[in-house]
Amino acid sequence: MLSYKAPLRDMKFLLNDVFDYQTHYQDLSNGANADPETVDMILNGVADFSENVIAPLYQPADEEGCHFKDGVVTTPKGYKEAYQQFVEGGWQGLSYPEEYGGMNLPMSLNLIKSEMNGTANWTWTMYAGLTTGCINTLLQYGTDEQKDLYLPKLVDGSWAGTMCLTEPQCGTDLGQVKTKAEPLDDGSYKLNGTKIFISGGEHDLTENIIHIVLARLPDAPEGTRGISLFVVPKMLLTADGEAGERNGVTCGSIEHKMGIRSSATCVLNFDDAVGYLIGEPHKGLKAMFTFMNTARIGTAIQGIAHCELAFQNALPYAKERRSMRTLSGVKDPDQVADAIIHHADVRRMLLTMKAFAEGGRSMIYHSARYADKMAQGIADGNNEEFEKWDDKLGFYTPILKGFLTELGIEAAKHGQQIYGGHGYIKEWGMELIARDARIATLYEGTTGVQALDLLGRKVILQSKGKAIRDYTASIMKWCGEYALDKNMRKYVWALTKLCAEWNTLTVRLMLSARKDREIISAASDDYLMYSGYVTMGYHWARMAAIALEKLENGGTEAPEFYKAKVQTAEFYFDKILPRTSGYAESMLTPSESMTAMDIESFAFLE
Amino acid sequence: MLSYKAPLRDMKFLLNDVFDYQTHYQDLSNGANADPETVDMILNGVADFSENVIAPLYQPADEEGCHFKDGVVTTPKGYKEAYQQFVEGGWQGLSYPEEYGGMNLPMSLNLIKSEMNGTANWTWTMYAGLTTGCINTLLQYGTDEQKDLYLPKLVDGSWAGTMCLTEPQCGTDLGQVKTKAEPLDDGSYKLNGTKIFISGGEHDLTENIIHIVLARLPDAPEGTRGISLFVVPKMLLTADGEAGERNGVTCGSIEHKMGIRSSATCVLNFDDAVGYLIGEPHKGLKAMFTFMNTARIGTAIQGIAHCELAFQNALPYAKERRSMRTLSGVKDPDQVADAIIHHADVRRMLLTMKAFAEGGRSMIYHSARYADKMAQGIADGNNEEFEKWDDKLGFYTPILKGFLTELGIEAAKHGQQIYGGHGYIKEWGMELIARDARIATLYEGTTGVQALDLLGRKVILQSKGKAIRDYTASIMKWCGEYALDKNMRKYVWALTKLCAEWNTLTVRLMLSARKDREIISAASDDYLMYSGYVTMGYHWARMAAIALEKLENGGTEAPEFYKAKVQTAEFYFDKILPRTSGYAESMLTPSESMTAMDIESFAFLE
Repeated sequence: MLSYKAPLRDMKFLLNDVFDYQTHYQDLSNGANADPETVDMILNGVADFSENVIAPLYQPADEEGCHFKDGVVTTPKGYKEAYQQFVEGGWQGLSYPEEYGGMNLPMSLNLIKSEMNGTANWTWTMYAGLTTGCINTLLQYGTDEQKDLYLPKLVDGSWAGTMCLTEPQCGTDLGQVKTKAEPLDDGSYKLNGTKIFISGGEHDLTENIIHIVLARLPDAPEGTRGISLFVVPKMLLTADGEAGERNGVTCGSIEHKMGIRSSATCVLNFDDAVGYLIGEPHKGLKAMFTFMNTARIGTAIQGIAHCELAFQNALPYAKERRSMRTLSGVKDPDQVADAIIHHADVRRMLLTMKAFAEGGRSMIYHSARYADKMAQGIADGNNEEFEKWDDKLGFYTPILKGFLTELGIEAAKHGQQIYGGHGYIKEWGMELIARDARIATLYEGTTGVQALDLLGRKVILQSKGKAIRDYTASIMKWCGEYALDKNMRKYVWALTKLCAEWNTLTVRLMLSARKDREIISAASDDYLMYSGYVTMGYHWARMAAIALEKLENGGTEAPEFYKAKVQTAEFYFDKILPRTSGYAESMLTPSESMTAMDIESFAFLE
Repeated sequence: MLSYKAPLRDMKFLLNDVFDYQTHYQDLSNGANADPETVDMILNGVADFSENVIAPLYQPADEEGCHFKDGVVTTPKGYKEAYQQFVEGGWQGLSYPEEYGGMNLPMSLNLIKSEMNGTANWTWTMYAGLTTGCINTLLQYGTDEQKDLYLPKLVDGSWAGTMCLTEPQCGTDLGQVKTKAEPLDDGSYKLNGTKIFISGGEHDLTENIIHIVLARLPDAPEGTRGISLFVVPKMLLTADGEAGERNGVTCGSIEHKMGIRSSATCVLNFDDAVGYLIGEPHKGLKAMFTFMNTARIGTAIQGIAHCELAFQNALPYAKERRSMRTLSGVKDPDQVADAIIHHADVRRMLLTMKAFAEGGRSMIYHSARYADKMAQGIADGNNEEFEKWDDKLGFYTPILKGFLTELGIEAAKHGQQIYGGHGYIKEWGMELIARDARIATLYEGTTGVQALDLLGRKVILQSKGKAIRDYTASIMKWCGEYALDKNMRKYVWALTKLCAEWNTLTVRLMLSARKDREIISAASDDYLMYSGYVTMGYHWARMAAIALEKLENGGTEAPEFYKAKVQTAEFYFDKILPRTSGYAESMLTPSESMTAMDIESFAFLE
């Protein structure tokens, strides 16, 4: 049976020692609310709720799944009660403005909340998580009237929200969206069409669900420039803003999936559903893309959530399960065999999971500071500030989403390997983590989409390589500070070499792309993974530097914690970072290696 | 809905062009039976059965699962009827001696049968597959009386068999086996104990199930040297050898698993079950290990089965699904978007799956020749010959099992990625392949066990590196033949470099291990994967050489097939083989990087 304990010590190490969040909060207009005591209170409150309320529901809910009958979706046992507790705690409004009933705390705390909730129980967390997409859209693009109508109940959690983008014929390529919106005389619109893969599209947690829907107006141009954004409530609002009559949105079915079985993935049919335009006509896709970054970081969190949960649950098994004697001699002489944690290969898997979970957490906590500033831009109605920080975040987003979700899958796999055959049995829960982790590289843009976004858009199209030059320059600058520190030499040398290589690779790809356009697609996955491993290496080096400092200065109450940080950093540089070599070598391959084959020559099965 | 077509052209390319199986068969005592017409007939017959009888059952059977009630296991709809057809076709006896009712064909044809059956429907194939372990054990270690009693009905398929090794406290470490066997006055034994994870331990396909059971005699020494082997029929035999009264073996439950849901994984309780000793007392484990190689190659086949099935079913989707335009321009101008097969990143995934499936098939067909010779040794009662070829096979076994099953997981993952969100939905079947592929690195010895077997036992302990010196010498010799062929230069250069590196790495690890014993465990996974990629590279180079020859000589009826072979080889060398770099770099890390951390420092979750 899976269990979860919030890794508060590690989280506080990042918040306080690595990223100095308190100084960062002083720069934010809502940062004063996040004083150390409040942050502690939030962390402890979320940890308690995550560990004791939703974690125990995770495995039974997967077993039970969601129920669907005649358009009604019933969530698994306990989900509704847990959601009620969440609402009562005011947790949904953590980072939203006070005027709509929120706590007005920085966005980063909301991401940390998602991390703990999501690690404890990813599927439960999805329901509240999707609502934030809806809230964010209304906050930035809604009229004042729309905000007043919907936000108070979304922010207090009594209503939920969704994002309705995908249709049967298209996911990534939203230019193919067919759902139609026709204007009605009263200024509202009548929507008709089918949306699929709508997480939380229907459920029994709230009395209303507010759908944000992409659709086409009658005069819409073809493709992506003809998409508009609508808010479509499941229950139409009464004159006093309560949930009233049923709107023309019905759930046609829920998907039968490999995992996230307790998160309802809905087919939604819009039959003359009444909706209201958000923002300008035909500009819906641009609005969507401005929230892509935060939505994708939410999914990146899923990557480290599964790394952490798999790690936490593989560790006790590795300490208890006994098999053979280690190559270096008997470790548990009084026992019939040594605990498997003594075998170096098992430690390799455990340390990989640990390095991914903690390294990924550091990457997310770093980016969460940009999210704070971006959110502040929205709150202040300062679009320039919003775009500035959204752009900065935009560079990290595909790395976080693309790379960390791939690591989530790998970590879950190691967890199963450590359990041996038991890793395949439902009872232990490791297979559940593996199944749930699998969705994360598919939704919110597949890994391929992230990879193309990073290399094609962020690195080449938008910045002609400058994004990488700037980022590696900042890493090199950091390395410079430690150039004479012999304990840091290993990290500084490796990173210096990698930064030079990363720039060279980028330039070579840009040059090749002049003649070989398709190389950007061909190289993108290698480039993404390379970028991810180097970025995580930088984070491990930073953590090692701070841990070494703490150890040298002495007086710390938990030297073992810092010692383990340094050891994990060493492990990462020794055993994980070498993976960059293969990606570096492979990414320079001309695209012909992939494009030359005739479509009909892939298989000869006649 | 998944479908399967046997890749007969590719199989015949290997059998005829690459490995010249007809010449090989002339060396075998039963090879004359395998004339070209017979081989063709077998291939077509197995393909027909696989494609039309068992493939359509695969997905529905997963949905239904196995049923368990009061000790009775019912297999999914259609499994019993398909099994009956299999029995009527005489397929179970393909490679077994005529004196027991078999067709006396070489073992390699049985492996190829398993490949096609297993690709079409892995879980159905497991029932017949486990029986072969039981037949092999009785063939080599049974008394004449035991052979006469059990083999005819096992060989004709009317009875099934199992291998009962694992117990709750131990899988790999069979020295911990506790099941007891006490001698009775009539020469038989009374067995008591619990076995778990017994595939096909109970089912409704046959009227009897013959269990091969590891247990301890009362005077057994502790550990692995006190294990004996017993045959324990589910139904005791009547005087005329028919299934009679029920023996004391009952199925306590079946496991609820991530995948292979239609293969019954049983807890078997032995309560005073009557059994009969096979071979000498206390020598059971050695006997088991002699069959480990073939059992493990059976599991290696699962790796390529999933690569092939994922590839075959991702390909049509990639041709039909449309999303965006490619970077190099519009490919399908009359359509709303380009088919995703035009995107280089999608081709990368398809070609990876294809390269794994066909490269892995070549590796297995190569080793199957050793299996033929080994089986001939058994059939001829020539233990020396048996051991000679078993040893040769033993070097390849951990590479095949460890490496190819890992690739099966990766290929299944690519299949899901190509489908995007639909890859996560049950309907399409890609998620089923991913779930079923996942078991293959866990059972029959985890990847970690294979890795240690390769580096620790086969390379270092048994051969002091000679195994690698010999193997790389044979690759270098082959490279020498193509040294002046400019079309082959790419492959020859890369392989030459890798062979030198492989030897250097081996020597460096052996030297390090003098002081750092645990490095063998720490490096083993890297070493296994490195060995796998180089071996597969050698196979791709050989296939490319033959394909180039065919193309140069002209007159072949299918130049596209050979052209695609060369293109896939190029892809493999460009985009896959670079992975060796990372493994080479990582494997030399001293074990301290893994062993230094205190057990209590892995996590700080107080």
